[in-house]
Amino acid sequence: MIDQLFDAASKAFIQYKNYPSDLKADFLEKIAEILEASRAQIVPVAVEESNLPEGRINGELGRTTGQIKLFANMVREGSWLEATIDPGDRNREPLPKPDIRRMLTPIGPVVVFGASNFPLAFSTAGGDTISALAAGCPVVYKGHPAHPLTSKLVADCIHKAVISSQLPDGVFIHVEGGIEVGQALVQHPAAKAVAFTGSFNGGKALFDLASKREEPIPVYAEMGSVNPVFTFPDKLESELIPLAQSYVNSLTLGSGQFCTNPGLIFVPKEHAAAFETAIADTVKDIAGSPMLHPGIAKAYYEAIEYYQSRNELKWIKVAEPKHLINGSPALAEIKASDWLADDVFQQEVFGAFALMVVYDSQEQLLEVAQKLHGQLTITVWGNIPELKQNTALISLLEEKCGRLLFAGVPTGVEVGYAMQHGGPYPSTTDSRSTSVGASAIKRFARPIAFQDMPADLLPDELKDENPLGIVRQVNGKYTTEKI
Amino acid sequence: MIDQLFDAASKAFIQYKNYPSDLKADFLEKIAEILEASRAQIVPVAVEESNLPEGRINGELGRTTGQIKLFANMVREGSWLEATIDPGDRNREPLPKPDIRRMLTPIGPVVVFGASNFPLAFSTAGGDTISALAAGCPVVYKGHPAHPLTSKLVADCIHKAVISSQLPDGVFIHVEGGIEVGQALVQHPAAKAVAFTGSFNGGKALFDLASKREEPIPVYAEMGSVNPVFTFPDKLESELIPLAQSYVNSLTLGSGQFCTNPGLIFVPKEHAAAFETAIADTVKDIAGSPMLHPGIAKAYYEAIEYYQSRNELKWIKVAEPKHLINGSPALAEIKASDWLADDVFQQEVFGAFALMVVYDSQEQLLEVAQKLHGQLTITVWGNIPELKQNTALISLLEEKCGRLLFAGVPTGVEVGYAMQHGGPYPSTTDSRSTSVGASAIKRFARPIAFQDMPADLLPDELKDENPLGIVRQVNGKYTTEKI
Repeated sequence: MIDQLFDAASKAFIQYKNYPSDLKADFLEKIAEILEASRAQIVPVAVEESNLPEGRINGELGRTTGQIKLFANMVREGSWLEATIDPGDRNREPLPKPDIRRMLTPIGPVVVFGASNFPLAFSTAGGDTISALAAGCPVVYKGHPAHPLTSKLVADCIHKAVISSQLPDGVFIHVEGGIEVGQALVQHPAAKAVAFTGSFNGGKALFDLASKREEPIPVYAEMGSVNPVFTFPDKLESELIPLAQSYVNSLTLGSGQFCTNPGLIFVPKEHAAAFETAIADTVKDIAGSPMLHPGIAKAYYEAIEYYQSRNELKWIKVAEPKHLINGSPALAEIKASDWLADDVFQQEVFGAFALMVVYDSQEQLLEVAQKLHGQLTITVWGNIPELKQNTALISLLEEKCGRLLFAGVPTGVEVGYAMQHGGPYPSTTDSRSTSVGASAIKRFARPIAFQDMPADLLPDELKDENPLGIVRQVNGKYTTEKI
Repeated sequence: MIDQLFDAASKAFIQYKNYPSDLKADFLEKIAEILEASRAQIVPVAVEESNLPEGRINGELGRTTGQIKLFANMVREGSWLEATIDPGDRNREPLPKPDIRRMLTPIGPVVVFGASNFPLAFSTAGGDTISALAAGCPVVYKGHPAHPLTSKLVADCIHKAVISSQLPDGVFIHVEGGIEVGQALVQHPAAKAVAFTGSFNGGKALFDLASKREEPIPVYAEMGSVNPVFTFPDKLESELIPLAQSYVNSLTLGSGQFCTNPGLIFVPKEHAAAFETAIADTVKDIAGSPMLHPGIAKAYYEAIEYYQSRNELKWIKVAEPKHLINGSPALAEIKASDWLADDVFQQEVFGAFALMVVYDSQEQLLEVAQKLHGQLTITVWGNIPELKQNTALISLLEEKCGRLLFAGVPTGVEVGYAMQHGGPYPSTTDSRSTSVGASAIKRFARPIAFQDMPADLLPDELKDENPLGIVRQVNGKYTTEKI
C-alpha cells in the first residue's frame, strides 16, 4: 500500500516540479480559497476534536490561509530560488570560462507529520505541507490521530484544489494510521525529507530512523523547548506587575500547549518575593481549560506529580486536577543553584507549568546560559543599561536559541519573512531551518547548477531575458535585469 | 588533549563570531598573502608528498588563494548573511506587530578533514577551512596523513595570520593523528559541524558517528561519484573524435584522482565501435603517472583486478601495473543491459578507470537514469534537437546530480557564485550544500531572529541605517537602503 502511495507521489513529482511557478501559486491559493469556503464545516469539528475554543480555531484557520497566501506570493516573486548566474567567457585565459547557472530545485516527495496542538496551522494544510508544496514537492501527509475528522476535511479541501488545478493525485496524499505507518513512510526509499512537529521522543525517533536509511534524508523535527525568560533587576523594579501578568498570560494561553510556551523564568533574588506574589495574584483567577486530549493531560499531571516529589521546589500555585482533562496552571520556585544541579529541571512539561528560578548574580546567569539546552526562543527583559552590562550573557544566549526576544512574550509566532522558528538541538533536529515564515520553503529544496546549458533548455528562472522578472544574483550582484 | 583543543576553540568562537566582518575579511586575506609568500617553501614539499606535478601544485596554490579572496569579498559584501527585516507596527490590529530581524550566525567550532587529492585547495587552508572561518567559525583541522609536512607548513601560515590579526589561538587548531583522533573530534560535544572530502566509507562513518551523538550535528561529506557522461547519436556523428579525446583527457587528468572524474560514459550502439577506436587511439599515448600514495594505487589495481574477473566486460585498454604507484589508465566496455543488472558497476574506482556503457535505445537510458545513484555531476552531450527529444531523461538526470553539464567535461570545477559541488546521496551526505563556490559558507551558519531588540544592541548588519551598506530583505524586498 505504501509502495503505491510513493509510486504516485514520485510520478507526481516529475510533473509537478516542472509546473510553472504561477500555476503552483494558483494551486496554493485555490487551497486557501476552498479552506475558507469550508470554514463552517471545519471549525466545529476541529473544536470538538481539539477542545480548543471556537475563537482560537477560527483564528487558526485565518492563520493557515494567511500562511498559504505568503507562500503563494513567494512562489510568484521567485527570489527564494536563489537563481545565480555566472556568465561564461570564451576568451578567458588560460581556459575559457563556462557559463554556470544555479537555482534551488525541489528535493522530492516529503513526509509530513502534523501537530496535535495546531489542528489547522501545523497540520494537514499547515506550514510544513504548504511550504513543501510551494517548493515543488509532493506531500505524503500522516494524519494526526488526535483530530482525524478535521484532518480528513482539510485533506478533502486540498484534494479539491488538486483536481481543480488539474494536478496529478499524487501531489497530496493523506494517510491514516499508527506509529508503524509513520515509520514505514519515513523509511520508504522514495521519501526525500521529513517534517514533524511534536514531542522530543517522537521527533528523535524519526530522526534516528531517517539517519539509518540506506539513503539518509533530512528530518526537520520541531520538538519544543522551555523558552526561558531572563529578567533583570531594574526592569522589574519599574514594571514588575505588568511583566508578571504578561508572563502568566503567555504561560497559560491555550492551557500552555504551545511550543513557545515560556516554562522557565529567571528572576533576581531581590525581586523574587514581589514577583512571586504578582504571579500568584494573576494566576489565581485563571481557570484550567481542557487540554487537547486525555493523553496530554495525563502526561502533564504526571510531570507535575514528579516535580511535587522534589524537595528543591517551593510551590507558588499547585495544579487542581479536579477534572483531569483540564490543564490547571501550576508554578513552582527553585533556587538557581538547585536548578543548575539537575538537568531534569530543563525538561519541557507540555502545559501551563513553569519554574521560577531565583538567581543571585550575573555570574550565576552566565553559568545558567552555559548549561542551557537549545531552545526555540529565549526572552530577555532588561532596561537598556542592564542589557548593555550583560552583552556577554546575551552573546551566550544567542548560541542557545533560534529567536531572541527583548520585549513581549514568545507565544504568538509572527508569520513573515524574518521569522525564525527553529533552534539548536534538542529544540529541533536542524537548527539551520525554520518551520514558520518564508524561509520554511528552503527546507524542501537543494541547489542544482547547469553548466553551458543551451538557452532553449534553460528554465525560465535562469534565462538571459529573465522572463519572470525575478531577483537573481548575476556575477555576484542582485538584480532583476536581463543579461 | 582534545578537551583542551575544543575549550580553546569554544572560547575563540565567542570572540571571533563577534569580530567585525571587515576584520574577518582582512584575516582571510592575510592567510592568502602569507601562503603566497610561502609558495617557494610549500610547493616542493607538496610535490614530494603528493606525487603531483609542480605545475599542478603551483596552480592549486593559486586556486587556494583565489578561493580565500572570494570568501573575503563575500564577507565584506555581506549579502550571504541573508539579513531580513520585518519592521514592527505598534498600531496593527488586533495585536501590535513586533519588529523582527533575522540573519545567519556562525554555528560554532567546525571539524574539517582534508583530502589527499588536493593537498592545498581541499586541505588545511582549503575551501572547507576558509568557508568555515569566513562564516565566523573556529576550525579544528585534522591533518591528512598523506601530506603531513605540507599540512604543517600551511597551518603555520594560518597561525601567522591569526597572530598578525590578533585573534585568539583557538580560531584555527591543527591536529595530527589517526582515525581514532578524527572520531574523537567528531564526537566532541563542542564540535558543531563536520566537513570532509574523501571516500564513501570514510564520510559515511563520520556521518553515522555524528548522527549518534547526544547532540547530532551536520556532516558535509563530499564522497565522490562516477560522474556519468551521456552521449547522443547526432552529436557523436559530427564530433566523435574531439569528444572521445576530451573524454579521455578528462578521465586521465591527474591520474583520474578527482572527485569529478568521469568514470562512466554512455554511448549509443551505432557509434560504439568508432568511439571505442577513438578512445583507444587517444589513451595509448597517455602514460600512467604516479598516484597520490601507494594505498590509493593498491586500491585502484585491486578494483581493476576485480573488474577483470567479470565476463561482462570487454577491455579497451588494460592497466599496465609495471610500477604499482603509477595509475595506468584502463577502460572497458559493457552492454547497458549488463550494467543495469549489477550495482557494482556504479561504484567509484578512484583513478583513471572508466566503463563505456553501450546502450540500445532512449528507453534504456531512462532505465539507466532511474537506477543511477546520486552524483556530483552528470554530463550530457547532444545536439539541441536531441536534447529536446530527451527532456524526460534530462529531468530525471536533474534528480541525480548537483551539476548538469551540456558541454565540456566535469573536471575543472569553477570557483564562483553559481557553482554547485555537492549532489544527492551517496555523492554527498547533504545534497542541500556545496563544498565549492560562494554558497559553501552557508554550511556553517544557522539563522537567528531578534525580536524587538533595542537599536543599541542590534548588530551592524541589522541596524536601521544599514551602516555596512549590505543587501537586505526588508518587508520582503531586496534593498541596500536604510529603513
